[in-house]
Amino acid sequence: MRLRTRADGGVVRVWVRTVEDAEPRHAAARPLGSIGGWDWWEARVRVHNPVARYRFLLEREPPGSDSEGRPAWLNAAGMWTHDVPDTADFRLSAEAPGPEWAAGAVMYQVFPDRFARSRAASRSDGGSEAPHVPEWAVAAAWGDAVVHEGPDTARQLFGGDLNGIRERLDHLEALGVEVLYLTPIFPARSNHRYDASTFRHVDPLLGGDTALAALVEACHARGIRVIGDLTANHTGDAHEWFRRAAGDRAASSGDVPERSYYYFRPDGSYESWWGVPSLPKLDWASGGLRRDFVDGPGSVVAHWLTEPYGLDGWRLDVGNMTGRLGVIDHHAEVFRLLRATALAARPDALLVAESTNDAAADFQGDTFHGSMSYASLTRPLWGWLTDGTAVNYFGAPLARPPRLPAEDFLAQYRAFSAAYPWDVRLRSLSAIDTHDTARAATVMVPGGQEVAAVLAFTLPGMPLVFAGDEFGLTGVDGEDSRTPMPWDDPDRIAADLRPLYEHLGQLRREPALRIGSLRWLWAEGDVLVFVRELPGCTVLVAAARADAAVELLPGLLPEGWAGAEPVLAVGRLRLEAASVGNAHDVAALLSAAGPSAAVWRLPGPTPPGE
Amino acid sequence: MRLRTRADGGVVRVWVRTVEDAEPRHAAARPLGSIGGWDWWEARVRVHNPVARYRFLLEREPPGSDSEGRPAWLNAAGMWTHDVPDTADFRLSAEAPGPEWAAGAVMYQVFPDRFARSRAASRSDGGSEAPHVPEWAVAAAWGDAVVHEGPDTARQLFGGDLNGIRERLDHLEALGVEVLYLTPIFPARSNHRYDASTFRHVDPLLGGDTALAALVEACHARGIRVIGDLTANHTGDAHEWFRRAAGDRAASSGDVPERSYYYFRPDGSYESWWGVPSLPKLDWASGGLRRDFVDGPGSVVAHWLTEPYGLDGWRLDVGNMTGRLGVIDHHAEVFRLLRATALAARPDALLVAESTNDAAADFQGDTFHGSMSYASLTRPLWGWLTDGTAVNYFGAPLARPPRLPAEDFLAQYRAFSAAYPWDVRLRSLSAIDTHDTARAATVMVPGGQEVAAVLAFTLPGMPLVFAGDEFGLTGVDGEDSRTPMPWDDPDRIAADLRPLYEHLGQLRREPALRIGSLRWLWAEGDVLVFVRELPGCTVLVAAARADAAVELLPGLLPEGWAGAEPVLAVGRLRLEAASVGNAHDVAALLSAAGPSAAVWRLPGPTPPGE
Repeated sequence: MRLRTRADGGVVRVWVRTVEDAEPRHAAARPLGSIGGWDWWEARVRVHNPVARYRFLLEREPPGSDSEGRPAWLNAAGMWTHDVPDTADFRLSAEAPGPEWAAGAVMYQVFPDRFARSRAASRSDGGSEAPHVPEWAVAAAWGDAVVHEGPDTARQLFGGDLNGIRERLDHLEALGVEVLYLTPIFPARSNHRYDASTFRHVDPLLGGDTALAALVEACHARGIRVIGDLTANHTGDAHEWFRRAAGDRAASSGDVPERSYYYFRPDGSYESWWGVPSLPKLDWASGGLRRDFVDGPGSVVAHWLTEPYGLDGWRLDVGNMTGRLGVIDHHAEVFRLLRATALAARPDALLVAESTNDAAADFQGDTFHGSMSYASLTRPLWGWLTDGTAVNYFGAPLARPPRLPAEDFLAQYRAFSAAYPWDVRLRSLSAIDTHDTARAATVMVPGGQEVAAVLAFTLPGMPLVFAGDEFGLTGVDGEDSRTPMPWDDPDRIAADLRPLYEHLGQLRREPALRIGSLRWLWAEGDVLVFVRELPGCTVLVAAARADAAVELLPGLLPEGWAGAEPVLAVGRLRLEAASVGNAHDVAALLSAAGPSAAVWRLPGPTPPGE
Repeated sequence: MRLRTRADGGVVRVWVRTVEDAEPRHAAARPLGSIGGWDWWEARVRVHNPVARYRFLLEREPPGSDSEGRPAWLNAAGMWTHDVPDTADFRLSAEAPGPEWAAGAVMYQVFPDRFARSRAASRSDGGSEAPHVPEWAVAAAWGDAVVHEGPDTARQLFGGDLNGIRERLDHLEALGVEVLYLTPIFPARSNHRYDASTFRHVDPLLGGDTALAALVEACHARGIRVIGDLTANHTGDAHEWFRRAAGDRAASSGDVPERSYYYFRPDGSYESWWGVPSLPKLDWASGGLRRDFVDGPGSVVAHWLTEPYGLDGWRLDVGNMTGRLGVIDHHAEVFRLLRATALAARPDALLVAESTNDAAADFQGDTFHGSMSYASLTRPLWGWLTDGTAVNYFGAPLARPPRLPAEDFLAQYRAFSAAYPWDVRLRSLSAIDTHDTARAATVMVPGGQEVAAVLAFTLPGMPLVFAGDEFGLTGVDGEDSRTPMPWDDPDRIAADLRPLYEHLGQLRREPALRIGSLRWLWAEGDVLVFVRELPGCTVLVAAARADAAVELLPGLLPEGWAGAEPVLAVGRLRLEAASVGNAHDVAALLSAAGPSAAVWRLPGPTPPGE
């Protein structure tokens, strides 16, 4: 492990503290010398437990009880002048990380009913605007308003399908999409399809199994991977398993295997998600359920990863609750099985799971490769960029996101990110909005969505674009955000941000953004500044949410910033050099006109020996 | 669950947020009305998982994106203007708490070799000053200097014994001791006796089994309980188990049960504590070991809790490492067995375990009743009160404790305390020093030890006095602190603090100090102020580490403080009322001359309906 400290920062000794079998150990780091104003230090970290935790203890001069010389602890949540619990130590997982292709890759989320209706399907409707729909559904023409309240919310079908996605892969490719994430594609009685009636066939309304195979093949031909969406916490009550489990035969004879898939009580009632009877909770003690769903080549998980479908991975819905009920906790066991099965079917598969709040403890590298959470980035971004609009805050019963200064954005971002192993963090999704939330364009100040997108595309993780973000679509909550794509209706394009997203997609190819380290330089009020670094390349990112004029400390910014032109910019944000005090101190003056951001590519740090 | 907020604080709505099956839920708290300047709120918290986590979300006026009206989250680590991980949520354990007698009780730690040599033993030496000792030991006369470096450190025997303790119970009783904690009393080849050769007999040098029985009986007659010290992570290599396990017969025939008690490798080497060969690590996969040590009425754990010995509980040494090795983790399982066995033998037994650093995750109520840790109180106290003396910091390879302002004391105290369920916190040990550390008198500024003692006796937990603290004894590290008690040598009494400790012991009988809630009022620089509260009684505590003059905000202190006389004081610290601005605002002026502290008993808060 290598650490570098500013040569003028007074650090005279560095210890690496590890925790082995719950006991701390300190080892002295070896000084490697100074290069370019940085002192380099090296220490060994032994991965003795499945997750190795470590942090650094920095001794400074002047020594002694003078507060100026106090030691500092450096962990994944920042620097501290007092000792802190191990929770935010840096972490290394002994498990294999997720696939290399996924680290920092650009992901695009599609809600199949709302992306595009294939030409063939459009023709088969005989030219009418609304699709033919099953009896439970309410047909909508592509340009109709989305219903987001009342009983028709889940029934409204616009008729998007998988061939429609396949016909528009040029659009994804232009945006630099590397991974297509499809929300559920199984038959159901809703437009979201999270209440699947089976996991064994693709919904005929979407084009069935053949449409999926064709879509995946077409994506692969363009170098785009595809992941699907599964729910393992519960099923709908129309699911074939539950129909068998709750049927007359099961109640009377008790020899229906699926009966064990759920938590039935003697009186016939059953456990369900949040007590909602239409969503019976799966009982993961059941060997039958495990084999059917997650364990072995015949399972649902394996089936769709295998030819002729060849999905590249899965996103698990409601991951946090899966396998948990009161004193029962099968969570880790179930997801280790799922992982083993998935990787046996496709060794380079990507596995991510939703855990909307404090997620990190469930993502220590032994189950999923990454998380889909809102806690570390989405919510603090909303807080920093909110314009006060009332939206469903999706995490607390507040009328609107609490407004946060940059200091609190950073504290929240760090607090929720710290406990992930770095490899997991690189494969966790960075979303500014999703199918379950209001749209960033509605939440944020004008220009805020663009700034948020720049941040999602420059911070560690997999930037997630929810289809429609590139058109500045709006929405006050999840259902309201599932807008049909405005392909042929320029009036419904709120802001054509395709050039920005295309540029961001290209920028994201930069290795320093995909896997480089993260170092925060500034977080005060309306301004955020950080760098992503690899040997030989530093990417500097500055963002503002309002007019700002800030003098950054001399020497704060990395070498080469003065005079460099940004490789990407939204709005007007500039860095200018100015002399401060004696001629040797050059401060950076950051000025911004409203919400704006800029990205520079600079020469990177040079470690010793390279 | 009830929460109260200041009526003028602008809180208009309170939510309680719980986490059930890893999913957050919010429930609105019901307003109960205002009393005495406080608004009271009530909400239900369902204990759905073995540990229920909860926190409060407070909505304030003015609402909206104005930072003045931002919501705040309240958890066990304080108040936050941004969302925070669940780690520091308040916690309720579904398991039974420890015994009621232990909550907040005063504990006194004795290192048997150094407390007192019984009159009978003194006479049997024929009047010589040094005891007769085994061949491995080095005899010391009571007044000799303690050796704390080099090979004789562990060999020096002063000859203290259990009858010597029994003869001096008046001393403990005067100090208000409720629980006597004995470091190990088993036969060994060291003065600390952590390298026991057996757990089945008391060291004859200490008076053997009968002396223990007599001591416990005498303690019980005075209402003093007694707990012992066991090490379950490893044994010494002279332990009877290891002698059998490593003996010739075990190596050749393989049918020695104790072979399974340790981690032997094929080449005959074995795992040991920190790689030290004389301390072989116990393999808790072994059923034989479990039965011998922690499982069932025939086990070591049960044996000494049962008549005729009747110990009242155990303190486990090196608890954090026990049962852990790389990918192996039997920790929780072993300690659940130990708990079940101990409580079957003695239902009101107290079980505490040492975990010197970040301990809380291992103390969620299902194993031990409390922890012995240095992280939450001892180390931050040292940091706040240090005079810069170089001592073994016992937790980091620093030359001296890092000096901390009160803000950092509080942040560290809170960070390490937050994740304990409250019932566990009440039974965790609050030590200013122990047999393993330097003495507070050496670490701290003059008068600092007294202030630290006041804090240990007024904060939640079991105040732990290490025999000798009451005489102001000194020491630069653990071994140096194991000073023979200066019973007959006034010159070796550095400071006779017996009156203070006697007064603190009496004060500790106050229920508000034993089980009352904790609320911090002030923590800046050189001054700390907090209250402990129960309905009807508030105990106000103020402490300073240096000259101080602080104006506390009007209305900050609880009702009745002005004009009240302290019930205990060390040094000179005063609170005086002063008018501020208009006549209705009365601020408290706190003045202190050097390290000082004071404690007041005031009328307490009145909940609705009482």
